[in-house]
Amino acid sequence: MDDGKTGGDSKPNLVQVKHKLWLEKNGGIFGEGLFQLLSNVAGLGSISHAAREMGMSYRAAWGKIKMAEDGFGVPLVITHVGGEMGGGARLTPAADELLIKYRRFQELVDTFVQNSFQETFRGWPGP
Amino acid sequence: MDDGKTGGDSKPNLVQVKHKLWLEKNGGIFGEGLFQLLSNVAGLGSISHAAREMGMSYRAAWGKIKMAEDGFGVPLVITHVGGEMGGGARLTPAADELLIKYRRFQELVDTFVQNSFQETFRGWPGP
Repeated sequence: MDDGKTGGDSKPNLVQVKHKLWLEKNGGIFGEGLFQLLSNVAGLGSISHAAREMGMSYRAAWGKIKMAEDGFGVPLVITHVGGEMGGGARLTPAADELLIKYRRFQELVDTFVQNSFQETFRGWPGP
Repeated sequence: MDDGKTGGDSKPNLVQVKHKLWLEKNGGIFGEGLFQLLSNVAGLGSISHAAREMGMSYRAAWGKIKMAEDGFGVPLVITHVGGEMGGGARLTPAADELLIKYRRFQELVDTFVQNSFQETFRGWPGP
């Protein structure tokens, strides 16, 4: 708040602005948690492995994915059984795009929030 | 998500973007709750009345105000005892400014979030 350099986690002695984003449709359908979960599914090729990575049950993970699919009206994860790897899961093209767009959206908002905070509060509360 | 008109609470059938803002300095010091509390102090001239309005104890309200004053390094509320009204509280000029600036900041961010969401997700997930 005092020298125009808030926003870095490394400066606990300055006032910092924080924000949280999420998407709703009759309740929350997408946010940082599901972003991370889907990123894990993409990386690990498995919902259960992706869920375990976050300390979540398969059932909870699947429930969150299903809620987002219902909300967006588009499949996000395709599961397949058998094959060399003994089955697994992968993201649909729509989900790949969702992750790219959501990350970009978050970055745009984060930049705006930090800059707008600095501008709005410049000089406050005075010397 | 499908016609460029998300964001209104009156359209539960569309995906809406939500956001939350707050300020931190070694922990949260200011957000929507304290904004409301200080607005109530300004309107009611009393911390206890302002707190009661929000279903909060005087002690909790005072604790939040004190934490924000410590974080910002500036007094926000001045209490006075006695006089015709039997004492009460009012905001400092710094707190008046804080409320004005924070409301403006929230409005700027809200507008940006809604517009940026529309632009980023335009056309997704496709026809």
